[in-house]
Amino acid sequence: MLAYLGPQGTFTEQAARGLAKPDDDLTPYDTVPAALDAVRRGDVDAACVPVENSVEGAVPATMDALASGDPLVAVGEIVLPVRFSILVRPGSTGSVKTVTSHPHALAQVRSWLAKNLPEAQVVPSSSTAAGARAVLAGEFDAAVSAPVAVHHYPLEELATGVNDVEDAKTRFLLVERPGTLPAPTGSDRTSVVVTAADRIGALSELLAELALRRINLTRIESRPTKGRLGEYRFYIDLDGHVAEPAVGDALAALHRHCPETRFLGSYPRAEAGVGKTDDSGFEAAAQWLTKIRTGNGA
Amino acid sequence: MLAYLGPQGTFTEQAARGLAKPDDDLTPYDTVPAALDAVRRGDVDAACVPVENSVEGAVPATMDALASGDPLVAVGEIVLPVRFSILVRPGSTGSVKTVTSHPHALAQVRSWLAKNLPEAQVVPSSSTAAGARAVLAGEFDAAVSAPVAVHHYPLEELATGVNDVEDAKTRFLLVERPGTLPAPTGSDRTSVVVTAADRIGALSELLAELALRRINLTRIESRPTKGRLGEYRFYIDLDGHVAEPAVGDALAALHRHCPETRFLGSYPRAEAGVGKTDDSGFEAAAQWLTKIRTGNGA
Repeated sequence: MLAYLGPQGTFTEQAARGLAKPDDDLTPYDTVPAALDAVRRGDVDAACVPVENSVEGAVPATMDALASGDPLVAVGEIVLPVRFSILVRPGSTGSVKTVTSHPHALAQVRSWLAKNLPEAQVVPSSSTAAGARAVLAGEFDAAVSAPVAVHHYPLEELATGVNDVEDAKTRFLLVERPGTLPAPTGSDRTSVVVTAADRIGALSELLAELALRRINLTRIESRPTKGRLGEYRFYIDLDGHVAEPAVGDALAALHRHCPETRFLGSYPRAEAGVGKTDDSGFEAAAQWLTKIRTGNGA
Repeated sequence: MLAYLGPQGTFTEQAARGLAKPDDDLTPYDTVPAALDAVRRGDVDAACVPVENSVEGAVPATMDALASGDPLVAVGEIVLPVRFSILVRPGSTGSVKTVTSHPHALAQVRSWLAKNLPEAQVVPSSSTAAGARAVLAGEFDAAVSAPVAVHHYPLEELATGVNDVEDAKTRFLLVERPGTLPAPTGSDRTSVVVTAADRIGALSELLAELALRRINLTRIESRPTKGRLGEYRFYIDLDGHVAEPAVGDALAALHRHCPETRFLGSYPRAEAGVGKTDDSGFEAAAQWLTKIRTGNGA
């Protein structure tokens, strides 16, 4: 059983299908916290939630819901290009007088609509899938939807790839209760959220711990901690797997520095990274330390 | 003349009114880039744009539009609590059967609606102001709006402060063409966007330059640079004014490290910060350096 941010027929369902095992049942939930709580309660095995979009930015609902409550860890990620299609009722040959979708989607196809359907009235809906349903019900002529919507609604594509920005992408995480970690693949990402003291240089010290171990940071975002003024949470993504010596040693260092440290998972990267962190030296150094501590070397 | 992200009757207009001079004309623009381009062209003197929301996160449209194009600098900021009102037609005493607003606003009053108007049908609109206009036109019974909307539409408040999260806030910037900077007040913020090389430790070095000068970081956010794979922009807010020795010295250091550095302004903080950066030592050090370089000291 796999939860995802619903409704059916959206990009998150498309991502969930990409991350699911062949026999997984997919269940839509109304909100990101609801989907994650279903995993925490054990109602489902995993949840697929959006975490970052190249046009809209980070998804604070996901970041906040992962940072609090019972811990969950990401075991996989998928990056989907944001592609929109224009869906109409099958056999509909008349002109398109009305177009509906979620305001975010409408904003991302504004130029295409102005060029190709300049006369059409644009009407907002509560989600891209709700727009598709309204077209099916005959309320509007066309909907701007994720391509996956055609799996749920008997609609036809009038056009596809109608988004104004061509390289927009959304990243999704597959999240489970803590358990066996995915094995390192040599191209992994590790996510962690830490609370830093409200002190000059606190973040600089944390990042120095990563840099000194030659660990590549791929994303950092600060969010105010709710309720505690002036205290920040930092969401950090880095290249490598916690099973690797350099990453493990760095996470231990973050734990020493930070009042709160929460591991959000190590999982295969969807896109190629810079490759494996250089761990040479860590094992030799540990052996040397053991020797000098036991009087067997110097 | 002051541009703002429209339409009329939204939080951004409310922020613009708070930042405007008494005789400023306020003009709404459809998008953040359109408002900023109006400043660049000289059509208006300044623009008020949202930059950060405690619930929704950063506003990527604003960050991206400030990072490219002709440079603009912030000269002021304002932080507004996100408060929503329920607006109805004056004298309307019947029950509320339909409620409309932008999906973001509807999401932020979900609990209030479930408790107080459980029977009402919820219908999305393209903006909170569009929802207010639809109520005025008699299409729906109630709109979820910014309190400022009652200045534009002859509607009445059925309830106010209906937002589920009480401490949600949005930060807005007042942006102008580069010119005379606002004078330091002792409680200022400086914003800068830098491009860091795609190299391990690059960000750590930048933040060390701030920490070594005892400069307090108040926000950091990474965004991928469009078109150049693996290169990141970092949006950094810090306490202090560029006219102060420590901050000026730190910005010069960032300029040495980074392929691109863009100053986004020094302006009075809306909320109290940690106070003035400690500049003691900078002047004495400069005098000492001059002396030893000229053979007058050691």
